[in-house]
Amino acid sequence: MFTHLSEFHAWFAHRGEVQRQHVTRIPLDELGGWAADPRTGNLVHRTGGFFTVAGLDLTRSGRGVEAWQQPILVQPEQGVLGILVKDFDGVPHCLLQAKMEPGNVNGLQLSPTVQATRSNISKIHGGRDVPYLQYFTAPRKGLVLSDVLQSEQASWFLAKRNRNIIVRVDEHVPVLDEFCWLSFPQICALLRLPNLMNMDTRTVLAGAAGISLSGGDSTEDSFRGALARSREAEVSLHSMVEVLSWFTEAKGRCTLTRHTIPLDKVSGWSRRDGAIKHDLDLHFSVIGVAVESDSREVTRWQQPMFEPRGQGVIAFLVKSIRGVLHLLVQARIETGALDGVEMAPTVQCQPENYKWLPEARRPLFLDEVLGASEDRIRFDSVHSEEGGRFYHARNRYLMVEVEDGFDSDVPEDYTWVTLRQLTELVRYGNHLNVEARSLLTFFGFYEEE
Amino acid sequence: MFTHLSEFHAWFAHRGEVQRQHVTRIPLDELGGWAADPRTGNLVHRTGGFFTVAGLDLTRSGRGVEAWQQPILVQPEQGVLGILVKDFDGVPHCLLQAKMEPGNVNGLQLSPTVQATRSNISKIHGGRDVPYLQYFTAPRKGLVLSDVLQSEQASWFLAKRNRNIIVRVDEHVPVLDEFCWLSFPQICALLRLPNLMNMDTRTVLAGAAGISLSGGDSTEDSFRGALARSREAEVSLHSMVEVLSWFTEAKGRCTLTRHTIPLDKVSGWSRRDGAIKHDLDLHFSVIGVAVESDSREVTRWQQPMFEPRGQGVIAFLVKSIRGVLHLLVQARIETGALDGVEMAPTVQCQPENYKWLPEARRPLFLDEVLGASEDRIRFDSVHSEEGGRFYHARNRYLMVEVEDGFDSDVPEDYTWVTLRQLTELVRYGNHLNVEARSLLTFFGFYEEE
Repeated sequence: MFTHLSEFHAWFAHRGEVQRQHVTRIPLDELGGWAADPRTGNLVHRTGGFFTVAGLDLTRSGRGVEAWQQPILVQPEQGVLGILVKDFDGVPHCLLQAKMEPGNVNGLQLSPTVQATRSNISKIHGGRDVPYLQYFTAPRKGLVLSDVLQSEQASWFLAKRNRNIIVRVDEHVPVLDEFCWLSFPQICALLRLPNLMNMDTRTVLAGAAGISLSGGDSTEDSFRGALARSREAEVSLHSMVEVLSWFTEAKGRCTLTRHTIPLDKVSGWSRRDGAIKHDLDLHFSVIGVAVESDSREVTRWQQPMFEPRGQGVIAFLVKSIRGVLHLLVQARIETGALDGVEMAPTVQCQPENYKWLPEARRPLFLDEVLGASEDRIRFDSVHSEEGGRFYHARNRYLMVEVEDGFDSDVPEDYTWVTLRQLTELVRYGNHLNVEARSLLTFFGFYEEE
Repeated sequence: MFTHLSEFHAWFAHRGEVQRQHVTRIPLDELGGWAADPRTGNLVHRTGGFFTVAGLDLTRSGRGVEAWQQPILVQPEQGVLGILVKDFDGVPHCLLQAKMEPGNVNGLQLSPTVQATRSNISKIHGGRDVPYLQYFTAPRKGLVLSDVLQSEQASWFLAKRNRNIIVRVDEHVPVLDEFCWLSFPQICALLRLPNLMNMDTRTVLAGAAGISLSGGDSTEDSFRGALARSREAEVSLHSMVEVLSWFTEAKGRCTLTRHTIPLDKVSGWSRRDGAIKHDLDLHFSVIGVAVESDSREVTRWQQPMFEPRGQGVIAFLVKSIRGVLHLLVQARIETGALDGVEMAPTVQCQPENYKWLPEARRPLFLDEVLGASEDRIRFDSVHSEEGGRFYHARNRYLMVEVEDGFDSDVPEDYTWVTLRQLTELVRYGNHLNVEARSLLTFFGFYEEE
């Protein structure tokens, strides 16, 4: 436990010294253990495990571009992302792990107590036991606070989902070297720092967003108070039935058709410089990396990764309606998601990809977000996406209050919801996408700067 | 409106005389408008519309049989099943339709106000306008009471879902000849009659199960009173978080892998007598029918249908726990469902299919259901499945109170939930399967005999 955050930072710096990792880019065709399937060109591991890079063909997307093809990560198995919670002196603490991932821009980030793929769990690669896993698999002790199968980045993954679970225990829990207990208030503060709380931690914590806020003072005359009121609000612009109906309606409008194709056949992409790149150098590249680590189950391996071309912008516009803070949520066609449409932040894009498109096709509300005056930006921090699959993938996460007079009447793919409604929706899979869940965590664990 | 149900029956009998339909079995290879795709043998319509009969390969099912192949209906588009509700003298009424379907054992059944496939809506087959559709498509008047994308029979359909929507209006609604208003109490009574309320009506009404019951008297010393208490109960054996966690856990155990294959390649099935039949004459057959109707958008057509071999048993065991009625729900691997696992009734099977399997593989709790004494059977009625795709598909739906001393401790794929919890879960898609939703409607619209 840390009394002051400076102790945490000292500990974390020390972990960065002892958990060493070395990552080198290598050409895809030199990846040890991986090969292009002779029939399809798909990148597959020799065990058939881990994941596959295949091709995806999309038509009638209803997005800025109607049809395209792209490489896609296929990993149908479900992993476990679990956070252990325990009260110390009446304050809930999370057991988090200082974990190296090859794609992390800074090497080490804070991951959940358990972040295990099915391959880790079944030890397909002959690694070590996953510590603390027994708290998250049945029959288990402890009280489950949240447990749901949630989707991951649908632009890069095909129907990938992981179990997001939070378990509260009372018993003594031995703390291994790479692990530490952080209190909810400490987590609030650390979530403001860039590239520290990894994506898995953020998505799991979304399940506790309701719990965390209930400690907030809803009478407080501050943005934090407004968030607490939004969390407790019995009133909302739209009833839950209306919100769910809006979501169902959006699914009805979705005409997306997709099917996997051989990676060899993906048009608009080509092998260049040892990687697979978009012909206009947009979106992302598939690259190869060689990793040496002294703190992982396996100490030396090579793998393909997705490297996005630019930094994304992920933002919720918020507005006080009838005295209650509402968030502008988007029913977004999520090309790779199991269920096609998910609820997403108001804005979620890589602005660079839109440079070559006509103005009219620029993402809605992007200008409101990027042009907001400083006093309306309530949260602004750059965070990383999953460093096990994505190389240096960073997004700028924002929470922006709209200007007075901003129209409550929004286009059909958007609607206003309260924080209370979001904390209800996050309990059910296939509703909030991973980007919305990250932002929900920032809202739930919000602290004034 | 009908003051007495006898008036309804007279009206319905009259409808049966004026809405005439003639259905004849014909060999599959003589079906007009349909042909076997030369590459796959799949049955496809010449327009490419409606649906396709393809093959499905399943492995690691976790069911009585681990792996098999079968024909499957593929119809990825979403249709609309909508019921219009309006109060007359303070009593809610539903606008239902006397509708002929070729697969109905008795021709005419009561369907929702709107029961339209995407093909109907877009008029791919050049049919008439769908009456009342405007109440269910945006922008619409009226108050939405329920609106969710729900799954259909996963043993016969691949990832088929329809929008289930209930809209309440105050305005005057003109009533066409085939339509009638039925009050909630009248619906309660009619749900006890066999093969009258079609599957689509039952699944949509599940969205109103909570509303309907709130009229029930929870102080009543009767089974109906116990249902009302279960609907209102703040207490339950398991919290909602625990129920959702149990569901997520079951999804984690699911190892089902499936992929479509050419219908020609389905092993264990063969073309015999103009149909596609299982080699042991189990499960179902794919047959062809020719239809002549004078009351449908199109008056004459031919189509393939699935004809089950035997009548199924679909039942919830119920038990009073801590004074509140609980239902024993099953996390069932639903082979064709989008999300693999859904919540199902305690028992859901075609008993005949298990005759040749060892005793140990008989469905759990089937004997408790079939062997229950009469005083413990609270509901017992035979109903039809969708008559547009399934030929004479009937299931016996039961609600059975367990004997005193029945163990509350149940196998891992089962858990106890209250009616209140089920009415919450039915708001979210991919949770309750269509059979559970039918039973939920019987619970929600329950009346003592």
